[in-house]
Amino acid sequence: MKLQLALDGPLAESRVLLDAVRPYIDIAEIGTPLVFREGMRAVRQLRAAYPDLTLLADLKIMDAGYEEATIAFDAGADWVTALGVAHDNTLRGAIKAAQVHGGQVMIDMMAVPDPLPRARHLLDMGAHLLCVHTAYDLQGGSANPLAPLGHLRAALPEAPLAVAGGIGPDLLDALLAHRPRVIVVGGAIANASDPRASAQTIRRRINEAIS
Amino acid sequence: MKLQLALDGPLAESRVLLDAVRPYIDIAEIGTPLVFREGMRAVRQLRAAYPDLTLLADLKIMDAGYEEATIAFDAGADWVTALGVAHDNTLRGAIKAAQVHGGQVMIDMMAVPDPLPRARHLLDMGAHLLCVHTAYDLQGGSANPLAPLGHLRAALPEAPLAVAGGIGPDLLDALLAHRPRVIVVGGAIANASDPRASAQTIRRRINEAIS
Repeated sequence: MKLQLALDGPLAESRVLLDAVRPYIDIAEIGTPLVFREGMRAVRQLRAAYPDLTLLADLKIMDAGYEEATIAFDAGADWVTALGVAHDNTLRGAIKAAQVHGGQVMIDMMAVPDPLPRARHLLDMGAHLLCVHTAYDLQGGSANPLAPLGHLRAALPEAPLAVAGGIGPDLLDALLAHRPRVIVVGGAIANASDPRASAQTIRRRINEAIS
Repeated sequence: MKLQLALDGPLAESRVLLDAVRPYIDIAEIGTPLVFREGMRAVRQLRAAYPDLTLLADLKIMDAGYEEATIAFDAGADWVTALGVAHDNTLRGAIKAAQVHGGQVMIDMMAVPDPLPRARHLLDMGAHLLCVHTAYDLQGGSANPLAPLGHLRAALPEAPLAVAGGIGPDLLDALLAHRPRVIVVGGAIANASDPRASAQTIRRRINEAIS
């Protein structure tokens, strides 16, 4: 079970944060806002600074799957995201680019109307990971990814699932019970008064859950 | 009726292209691949080079609507795109950011399962333009945006529609008959043996259609 840190802030701040929490995380996500601000410069800088860290470029690809995924892989990303609502041809293209470049594609299930049949289909197509993701714009109320993760896990006991969207310490144990391969955490680490301590705590609880 | 040129190639090449066709276009689109490669540097460079040209940043926003649209508006974009498949809260956020910054939001209807009711709803929410867009990954076969544009136009005679996706001279007159506010052209100009002549021809036919 891997811990992915979403980096959405400015690049310089993201590097300071990453330096602080590096021992506790497995994957650094170059978040969509950071991609929009900096482009692949963000991926190249982090790749140079952390040669052994898994980097995920959160492009949320919607079209031109092969071409756009290739942009991220060429810049040094290991994983790239694409949208589950995209056309199959686009997702096939992104998966093909991953095969060519030795990378992986995480498919973000955000706003997919009927997630279970779509999930089965995407796994059949060769998606490496499916991410149950509560949109940032839905957070703040009661929305969180626990129930949708539970539904997919119940139907797909061995599927490679990731989970994202406002995840903090309060939900962690319940999410971990559904055995996601990847837990994505952003604000609960980045905005903590002590990000390093927060990352360390989350890592410890993940380790306890899988021990 | 406006002509939008989609810039998807490298930034330096895009500037050369734009210099050649500037008299014939109304809007320069910083395409999604260009955003991914260069981030907002592409918007800032084009804004500095063309102070009076309308710039559209094709972010295809899927989440964090207010925050992500603001990134583009702050960099100098006039218009930003968001996805019709995104949650309403996300699109409301992007529209709110446009209001704050004096910009506009074009909503890309790509892969929206039931476009007509969604289009009505998005217009009620304050979307400035709806773009009927045939995905790049669906082009090459018979897929093109003519029929879906016709369906929306028939039901929404006055709606502000844009149209995109593999548009070249062959489809132009049929599309123009549906009175889109914006025609988006990419490869038919960018990959033409003489991009300036191609842009000039398309502009002339648009002018004839509206005269």
